[in-house]
Order: sequence, then structure tokens, then C-alpha cells
Amino acid sequence: MQQSTGALAPRGMDLGQAVIDTDIHVNVPSENALFPYLNDHWREYLRYSAFRLPTDTAYPKNAPTSALPTTTPENGTAGSSLDLVRSQVLDAWNVEVGILNCSYAAESLHNPDTGAAMSAAVNDWLVAEWLDKEPRLRASIVVPSRVPELAAKEVDRVGGHPGFVQVYLPVVSEAPYGHRRYWPIFEAAARHDLVVSLQFGGAPGNPPTGAGWPSYYIEEYAGMSQVFMSQILNLVVEGGFDHFPNLRMAMIEGGWTWLPSLMWRIDKDWKGLRREVPWNTQTPSDYIRQRMRFSLQPLDASPDPKHMRMLIDQIGSDDVLMFSTDYPHWQFDRPEDAVPAGLSDAQRRKILSENARAFYRL
Amino acid sequence: MQQSTGALAPRGMDLGQAVIDTDIHVNVPSENALFPYLNDHWREYLRYSAFRLPTDTAYPKNAPTSALPTTTPENGTAGSSLDLVRSQVLDAWNVEVGILNCSYAAESLHNPDTGAAMSAAVNDWLVAEWLDKEPRLRASIVVPSRVPELAAKEVDRVGGHPGFVQVYLPVVSEAPYGHRRYWPIFEAAARHDLVVSLQFGGAPGNPPTGAGWPSYYIEEYAGMSQVFMSQILNLVVEGGFDHFPNLRMAMIEGGWTWLPSLMWRIDKDWKGLRREVPWNTQTPSDYIRQRMRFSLQPLDASPDPKHMRMLIDQIGSDDVLMFSTDYPHWQFDRPEDAVPAGLSDAQRRKILSENARAFYRL
Repeated sequence: MQQSTGALAPRGMDLGQAVIDTDIHVNVPSENALFPYLNDHWREYLRYSAFRLPTDTAYPKNAPTSALPTTTPENGTAGSSLDLVRSQVLDAWNVEVGILNCSYAAESLHNPDTGAAMSAAVNDWLVAEWLDKEPRLRASIVVPSRVPELAAKEVDRVGGHPGFVQVYLPVVSEAPYGHRRYWPIFEAAARHDLVVSLQFGGAPGNPPTGAGWPSYYIEEYAGMSQVFMSQILNLVVEGGFDHFPNLRMAMIEGGWTWLPSLMWRIDKDWKGLRREVPWNTQTPSDYIRQRMRFSLQPLDASPDPKHMRMLIDQIGSDDVLMFSTDYPHWQFDRPEDAVPAGLSDAQRRKILSENARAFYRL
Repeated sequence: MQQSTGALAPRGMDLGQAVIDTDIHVNVPSENALFPYLNDHWREYLRYSAFRLPTDTAYPKNAPTSALPTTTPENGTAGSSLDLVRSQVLDAWNVEVGILNCSYAAESLHNPDTGAAMSAAVNDWLVAEWLDKEPRLRASIVVPSRVPELAAKEVDRVGGHPGFVQVYLPVVSEAPYGHRRYWPIFEAAARHDLVVSLQFGGAPGNPPTGAGWPSYYIEEYAGMSQVFMSQILNLVVEGGFDHFPNLRMAMIEGGWTWLPSLMWRIDKDWKGLRREVPWNTQTPSDYIRQRMRFSLQPLDASPDPKHMRMLIDQIGSDDVLMFSTDYPHWQFDRPEDAVPAGLSDAQRRKILSENARAFYRL
């Protein structure tokens, strides 16, 4: 195991209680790692085709934001070592439960059967290499999200495993996830009482802005929040929350300081335009407060702590934020910056563990 | 002239001083209105082709948000009567200078020469029917934005007219406007010392979200803020502000309460990723504060006035907001809601007139 050394090593800290970390990233180190979980057909497909791993990734390997250097094991990629996750996350932060998110980019595989086979292999790899080895870990189910029926089938295949607590959908998608074409995924999640999560990234093939393709990675990275906002707006107005009374959605690694402005805007516009969406029985911001949760990091924070307290006041609920390290991504320079300053003890406890415990039924 | 009557009539109010209204919408009432400003070729083209007006509009005629009923003259469309604009805006609000924005949707015309000819006709119509008749009015130049070279040519053709103070670009575009392909437009604006504005709407043909096509108009309407955010991010990092030292950009009708969160996020991410965009010589939020201005309406406001004061504090500048009525759109129920409560006298004076006066060199 490589030791964490130097200024850029991820450091944890004692937050005064055990925490629930809702966003730990793990990565499939290479296509070989999935061979034990593929049948002969797909092994041959991988051996004889040009296909290796999905090549499009929201986390370029050497971008400073993607991973701290010391999170990469000697023979592998960042976030691929259970030992490092144990020492750098679970032990370092006193993590009671940590949820693994594997951004495999199954949505970038346009062959639907390949997408389904590789997603299944990733989930079996998560069970064998992570969940079965470390009782503190939970995980999100990787699905071939381009084909909702196949995604639902995969949720049904592994959704009974107690280690899986949510479905992983990349936030950048071919169409907004509220569309009824995606409802089979929500139905499957409901069958297993799972959270459905939207997560940073996605490579469906269409541009990640409402004005075409940007030029730079900083735009893809910083602009990811806008995709979350578009998805949230669509998810509310399409009526999925009305149709699925048990539907709970987690927004992972998209930020949240934009929430007050978004809620003010949707609530206001809904007053004038709600005849379009008569199934919405409450104001849009109430769906957000009641049915959605947001991972704490990245924290796009004001330099002024009073602004952060005001933001939580503006959101109008202490229930929506959930602690996350976002390991191995590099979101904060000092562990002290992981949680906003100036919260009340009750707010802090909710954010550090209780909100996630209730939401994921841990 | 139709009288304003009833609860939904737009009412102005005395704000204690003359104001500069940076967003008054005018509409070409029909294709016939442009005939006097088209040559024989284009008159014949309109007569014998299926073409009438751009059919895609960000303002569906009867949506409650598009126009108050009493803003529509007896024979025409909302925002097509100078008499109504005089009585319902200029007189009602004690407007010293009002800037006309005509959302003609020239970008929806894929034939580049049609786009250029119709844009020129709209601008000549603006001069003849509005600017030459009412000294309080100024206007934005409509351009065929799909073809930047033709857009620049149109800016050069009419940019010397003292009534034109800015270039009109619809915020939803085929590509982000920071792309160097659009620089000919910025060059032309610089030649005439004009502001370049991004405005609500646009029908380039690609989806207005980073996750494909939404289903409902409320999404297009409320979600327009996300397109503004993507454009702002791109405009900063592409380096246009560094390349054109005189470039000033107005963001019209896209909201602004999302600005603090966006600035925190870009500034933070820029620290990690700025090697991609070495031409940026200051933090991204400084470009926004120094080179961009935002129209006040729509005001996606918190119900709590202290939140609004805090937002202006978070933006870190009293210079960026400019008063607007957004006439004839229906953005506020009561004139009292047009301006945030609790501003200092100095802040109020800047927002009501001084910021726009300095920015547009009025």
C-alpha cells in the first residue's frame, strides 16, 4: 500500500462523531478486472474487438480536480484500492457507512447488450471486491441507462443485495430523466426501496450545455451544476414524484449553493404556468425539500461563513444536505473546509449522519 | 389606443426619480410590417415562399408569462404599439431612457441570406417606427447570429445610428458565444463601442438543456437561467474579455440571484484548472463584476427581503444590476415588487439609472 505523504495527501479529521460518507468514488482499474464477472461471449468480445473500457470520462486522469496523487495505488488507478479507501477515507474520517459510486460510463456504450453486460460485471465486481470485504461499505448500482428496460432488469438482478442502496444515473443524459421513458428505472427502484441518484458526469453523446459544446474541461466541470438544475426542474414537472410516492432522489457532486435561487425561480414560474403540469400537487420547491438530498461536496462556498448559514436558511430545510468526502476528487484543500462553519449542533449532526441515515434507511 | 383596465393591466409607479429601463420588448406585428424595408427580391421571396415570420418563439402568445392582456393593441401583437409603450412604460415609470429589445429569432432562419435580409429589415423598422419617433428610446441591433460575419456586417451597417446601443444575441445558441467563431461580432461591437447582450430565448435547433430536450414550456422558461450560466462560463474562459479590452456584455432577462453561487464555483474550479485557459489574467468573478451587467427582472426573489440584501452583498458589487420592466412580459404582480426592498439610497440610484447610464454611455 502506498503511503499518503506530502502536502497533497488526503487527510481526514475527527468531526466529533461517526459520519456517513455519501460519495466515495471507486474505479474499475482495467478491463481485466471485470473478466471474472463476464461470460465467455463477452470475454471474447473484449479480447477480439477494439473495445476496452468506456473511453469518455468526466474525470481526466491527471486533472488536478480528479484525484490527489497519493490516492493512486502503485499498480492501478485512483479509487481502485480497498486498502487506500479504508485508510484514507473510512478510518481517516471515522466513517460509519460509506457509499461507493463507480462512474463506469455505461451510458457511453451505444450497443445496448454491451452496456448491460458491462454494467452487470461492474456490479458483481463491486459486490465481490468491495461490499463482501468491508462491512462499512454500501454501493450504487451501475445500469445501462440508455435503455431503461435493461437498466430496470439490472436493478432487479442485484437490488436485493443489502449492500446496494441506490441506482447510479450520470447527470448528463440523452434526455432529461423525468421523461416517462425512464420510468421503468424508477419502478424497479421502488420495488427494492432504493434511492435513485444523479451523479456528476455522463457521456451520452449530446452537448452538456443548453448552448452546444463548450471548449474546455473547466466548463464541463464547473458547468455540471447547470445540468443538475435542468434535471431537477424536469424531474419535478414531469410528475414522477407524484406517480411514485416512494421515489427519493440523491444529487451527488453537483453542488447545492444554487438551490435557493432555483427554488425561487421555479416556484414563481410555476404559479403562472402550472396548468401545463396539473399533476404537481405542491409547489416545486416542496418536492425538492421532501424528496431530494444533496451531497455536501463540492462545496462552492462563499469566503464569508455567514453567507453559508444564510444559504441553509434560504433552502428552508435542515434535511437536504448529506456529508461526503468526494474521495479521491480534490475538492477541498484542508479537512477543516469539508463542512461549513457556524452550523448549529443539530444541523451539523443531521448533515454528518442523520439525513443520510433516514434517506437511505441505513 | 386601448386603455389599460382591470387587475392585470401593467401599472407603473413613481420610484422617486427618472429611471433607465434596460428591457422593453417590441415585436414585429406581421411580415407586412417589414415589407417597406425589404427590396423586391425579398418581397417576392416572402410572397411566393412558405416563409412568413420565424415560427419558433420563446414567448408563446397566450402564455400568462408572455404578455399581460392589456398590452396587446386592437390590431396587432403585444409590444407592437408605440402609443402603448409610451403610456404603459415610458410615462408610467418615468423612464428617461428605455432600451428596446426585439426578439425576432433571426437565428431560427437557417438560410443565411434570409437571416441577414430580415435582420436588416427589422433594424430599419426599429429606426423608422420607434427610434425616429420617440427620443426616449434606444434599441438593440438584431443580427443573423448563425453567421457571425453577416452579423458583423449588419452591426457595421447600422451601428453608427445613435439610437442603437447594443447588439442582440439570443442566449440559446448553436455554440457558446465565447467561441472564436463569434469574435467578428465582438470586433464589430468594439468598432462602434456597443454593448453585446445575451437575451432570453433563441431557437437555433439544438436542445436548451445540457441533458437533451425538455418536455414543457415551464422548463424552457425557468431553465433559461442555466443557459445564461453556461454562456457566462464560456465567455469568461475563452478569453474574449482579455482579447477585447472594451467588450461589455449585458445579460437580459435571465435572472441574477444565481450569480453568487456561480461565481464561487467558477473561482474555485479555476484555481485547479486555470492552466487550460492561461489568457485569463484575473479570477472569473472579476470579469463578471467588471464587464457584465444584468437586467433586474425577472427577479427570482426570496420572500424574505434580508435574503435579497444578502445576495447583493454576496455578488460583491453594487454595479451589476440594471432596472428593467421586461414589458410586456408578466414578471411581477405589483409595481412595488419591481425593485428589491431594503436597498440603500445609493444602491437604489445605481440600479434605477446610474449603472445603465455608465455601461451604455448614455
